[in-house]
Amino acid sequence: MSLRGVVPPLVTPFHADGGLDLGAFGASLEALAVHDFSGFLVLGSNGEAASLDEDEKLLLVAAARRTVPGRFLLVGTGLESTRGTIALTRKAADLGADAVLVLTPCYYKGRMTADALRRHFEAVADASPVPVYLYSVPAFTGLAWPAGLARTLAAHPRIRGLKESSGDVGLLARIVESVPKDFEVACGNAPVLYPALCVGASGGVLAVANCAPRATLRLFRAWSEGDHATARRIQEALAPLATAVTATHGVAGLKLALGLAGLRGGTVRAPLLPAAPGLLDEIRPLLEAANAAA
Amino acid sequence: MSLRGVVPPLVTPFHADGGLDLGAFGASLEALAVHDFSGFLVLGSNGEAASLDEDEKLLLVAAARRTVPGRFLLVGTGLESTRGTIALTRKAADLGADAVLVLTPCYYKGRMTADALRRHFEAVADASPVPVYLYSVPAFTGLAWPAGLARTLAAHPRIRGLKESSGDVGLLARIVESVPKDFEVACGNAPVLYPALCVGASGGVLAVANCAPRATLRLFRAWSEGDHATARRIQEALAPLATAVTATHGVAGLKLALGLAGLRGGTVRAPLLPAAPGLLDEIRPLLEAANAAA
Amino acid sequence: MSLRGVVPPLVTPFHADGGLDLGAFGASLEALAVHDFSGFLVLGSNGEAASLDEDEKLLLVAAARRTVPGRFLLVGTGLESTRGTIALTRKAADLGADAVLVLTPCYYKGRMTADALRRHFEAVADASPVPVYLYSVPAFTGLAWPAGLARTLAAHPRIRGLKESSGDVGLLARIVESVPKDFEVACGNAPVLYPALCVGASGGVLAVANCAPRATLRLFRAWSEGDHATARRIQEALAPLATAVTATHGVAGLKLALGLAGLRGGTVRAPLLPAAPGLLDEIRPLLEAANAAA
Amino acid sequence: MSLRGVVPPLVTPFHADGGLDLGAFGASLEALAVHDFSGFLVLGSNGEAASLDEDEKLLLVAAARRTVPGRFLLVGTGLESTRGTIALTRKAADLGADAVLVLTPCYYKGRMTADALRRHFEAVADASPVPVYLYSVPAFTGLAWPAGLARTLAAHPRIRGLKESSGDVGLLARIVESVPKDFEVACGNAPVLYPALCVGASGGVLAVANCAPRATLRLFRAWSEGDHATARRIQEALAPLATAVTATHGVAGLKLALGLAGLRGGTVRAPLLPAAPGLLDEIRPLLEAANAAA
Repeated sequence: MSLRGVVPPLVTPFHADGGLDLGAFGASLEALAVHDFSGFLVLGSNGEAASLDEDEKLLLVAAARRTVPGRFLLVGTGLESTRGTIALTRKAADLGADAVLVLTPCYYKGRMTADALRRHFEAVADASPVPVYLYSVPAFTGLAWPAGLARTLAAHPRIRGLKESSGDVGLLARIVESVPKDFEVACGNAPVLYPALCVGASGGVLAVANCAPRATLRLFRAWSEGDHATARRIQEALAPLATAVTATHGVAGLKLALGLAGLRGGTVRAPLLPAAPGLLDEIRPLLEAANAAA
Repeated sequence: MSLRGVVPPLVTPFHADGGLDLGAFGASLEALAVHDFSGFLVLGSNGEAASLDEDEKLLLVAAARRTVPGRFLLVGTGLESTRGTIALTRKAADLGADAVLVLTPCYYKGRMTADALRRHFEAVADASPVPVYLYSVPAFTGLAWPAGLARTLAAHPRIRGLKESSGDVGLLARIVESVPKDFEVACGNAPVLYPALCVGASGGVLAVANCAPRATLRLFRAWSEGDHATARRIQEALAPLATAVTATHGVAGLKLALGLAGLRGGTVRAPLLPAAPGLLDEIRPLLEAANAAA
Repeated sequence: MSLRGVVPPLVTPFHADGGLDLGAFGASLEALAVHDFSGFLVLGSNGEAASLDEDEKLLLVAAARRTVPGRFLLVGTGLESTRGTIALTRKAADLGADAVLVLTPCYYKGRMTADALRRHFEAVADASPVPVYLYSVPAFTGLAWPAGLARTLAAHPRIRGLKESSGDVGLLARIVESVPKDFEVACGNAPVLYPALCVGASGGVLAVANCAPRATLRLFRAWSEGDHATARRIQEALAPLATAVTATHGVAGLKLALGLAGLRGGTVRAPLLPAAPGLLDEIRPLLEAANAAA
Repeated sequence: MSLRGVVPPLVTPFHADGGLDLGAFGASLEALAVHDFSGFLVLGSNGEAASLDEDEKLLLVAAARRTVPGRFLLVGTGLESTRGTIALTRKAADLGADAVLVLTPCYYKGRMTADALRRHFEAVADASPVPVYLYSVPAFTGLAWPAGLARTLAAHPRIRGLKESSGDVGLLARIVESVPKDFEVACGNAPVLYPALCVGASGGVLAVANCAPRATLRLFRAWSEGDHATARRIQEALAPLATAVTATHGVAGLKLALGLAGLRGGTVRAPLLPAAPGLLDEIRPLLEAANAAA
């Protein structure tokens, strides 16, 4: 159970009235579970974790655990405070999480030195009943990952890896080179999945895996088998869709694409805006191109 | 009851074990209440609101209300989701908040267009039982305030003003010029309080007011009376302290300065690091210089 | 002869074929010279100095000197290399420059530490036959001015002041407070001229002074006489025009506004694009509003 | 003659008195010419082009042409103005340049829209007697490369390729996918050379190629032959040296490393600071590690 391979960060479907739609969540997860994913991430950035209250978070973890009992279940538990993160981590573990993914705190960004981050992650790992993965996503946090931090934290027996979502392949390579071989560095940025694998990423935690599972898994498998030509070809086909459902249109775009793929994404929670009319027509051909390449 | 004049954003004292120290909170607020502040802000950035859970937030609001029953009580209720912000706003109002201060959501920063922010603030104001103030603090949110947004939102009958904490005096001036006279634009950046007042700020919500109340109030009064020379002189004396307890050393520095001023700041909550040894010796002369100018 | 008061940074008119139009340059300068400006800047950012070759630069300096023989003539001589800056400084002095304005080198921005900048400015000042003014304009250079640098350089007998064009009033205040009283800190950002004067700026070097000379001078005079209400009123009227002819439309906008004001601005040099059709209609009312306030 | 393969951007050696050292330049180039480089770049960023005057530039071009008569000679001719760039391009061609490398103008960065850049590059290409390569290096220019620009410019018969030095592998991939197969996109950022090749870079224009020619060429050859394991291994060994002689220590570090490699780098031109004492000891093991991997 690890971040080797491909892990989709699950979206959180909402009813039209804004409430959690656990039925849609379970149905979509079941549909995704037929694929050869290495695991599933609940409560990540694409799961709108920042917009959920604690009760909703726990319901989602429990539902995920029930739905995929034998699969690797990774749960995002990072909050701004160390104390809050520890409390949520324990609850997630109690509900059956196999590991937790802990975001860099970021509100007091000027104070989040390498030392402050180190102490935070170590305190969480000390208190966590399950393995801990670190999570850096500068596009949301406004915080760059300090060069030497992964190496230090890799020494903690419960810290197993890092999800690196900046898209900076050079940074990912430096991190990979600084840590022991068994510390997993997952790429969280699908448009650079193939080059990230080339420099040592263990796999990918990728929004686009929700809507284009076959293409994403095929890319990883091609690379694993040394078939660089195929990996690059799929990467080219996947990148426009991946960009559309993340950087360009965000979760609203991703949920739309899920719908096109036959899953139930539902609407986004405000302040995210619903998808603009016409977005469906923009995303459909990108999805078809990704599927065609798989 | 308004943001005209000076409002200190109260800190949240913690016990050594990390728990809320409501006794210290009440004692410090009582001590501050002897001053001619226009009101008090609970649950702002300097109150470590991002690191508090909801129970703690409600306890702080209730304690503040009890301690200063007749004073203007402004409560920070901004969360990432519109739904959560509305819920917390209502609870704060139930506990006696006179108005709420609503931060720009910022996790999905790429999606926080002027339109998304507008809908968020309008939905919160529609649902709020009390007046709403907007809050922009790019140093923490990584989000710039859209030029024309204040003007649009000023049309909402329940939106009364904006706390603008970027320190960009030109931006504050543009906002002031774009809104009706009774829409209050408070400066949230003490090192530019005087020039901000010159271009039309209604007052200041200022961390440094906690530890140097007399100097801060004196600056505002001097400016109100047209005594620019005094206002500028105090501004110069106040700026180094204000910078030390915000940009340079953050809340840990502010809490230390509170202690020097005879109040009870307590420690900070992790991941914020405790003040470095020796910081007291750095802050003491800055505090003395500010006091001497008052 | 100093940067106290208002100094227009002159534009460089070009013929339709792209060549220097010295006739238009002299005519416009003559027209501007009827105003009570403290001096004139040739070869600044608004003079498209970056797009001129050395011969053109020297012709402009000579023409300016001939046209305003008794007035303070400040010449921009900053180049990327210390060596080149010194050579051009000497030539400008030979042609009658009263002082030079030296831009922070910026190509190797990662290397332009406070120490590198200090050595650069000291070497230029050591070699310059005339007083030296420093010039920081982050919008063009991408380089922030190091906090303590002005204080160090103010000790050099030939370094007289700084043109600070970031628009950061807090930074300008910190610089003013760090230097001796006779070191002049000029504001290079017209939308914050009035608050900058409030915190100690000696005056302004302002693009908008070219097209709205009366309003700009009136603002400065009002402030000098302690008439804050008038200063603020003119500031409000001037800011939209100032923004239009700098941040929003750049030199092309400024040259258009010059034409509206009866001067000869001419076209811009590529890669700057000519003003978009319709820009005239956007700028005219802004100019009229500024003039009406004077 | 193309940017397929590896091209070292030559440094410009100076005498102790700051003057050009053409002897050292020629000697170093002769030494480099024994390697299987695809060509040589004169007057790039690592050649301190920004700090050279025109006479010096022409002397360097002439010297390079004399020294490597049969090799591909690429010359950096980008200046801030279109007019100046055209003039220098023609002179470089007259002196035997095989192609020119044209930097994005960047002083008026707010105005350098995709359209302004397009017109600039097209005007230069229209007037150039030799093929034109585009050059984007945000670390120096502060300017991001507009996504769609390469595709548009690739239609110009004289524009052959782009040197992309941001280190953003995802951006490079998008550019590669947008242009015809024969448009060459060279990587200008050695720490990501291998992943850049994986996504379609034609080769590299790399500072580190000056001091570690064998390792750099070996990496490229390994990749060309499909030997990814070797390419990745050399990439890992090369990256720390490449970072040291560019991002961390700049041209001063590169010139020091050249000396260690038996070439004559000389000092840097102010305002660049000379290498700090002790830097030699930092760079030597990095160079040895890179050589050992070759």
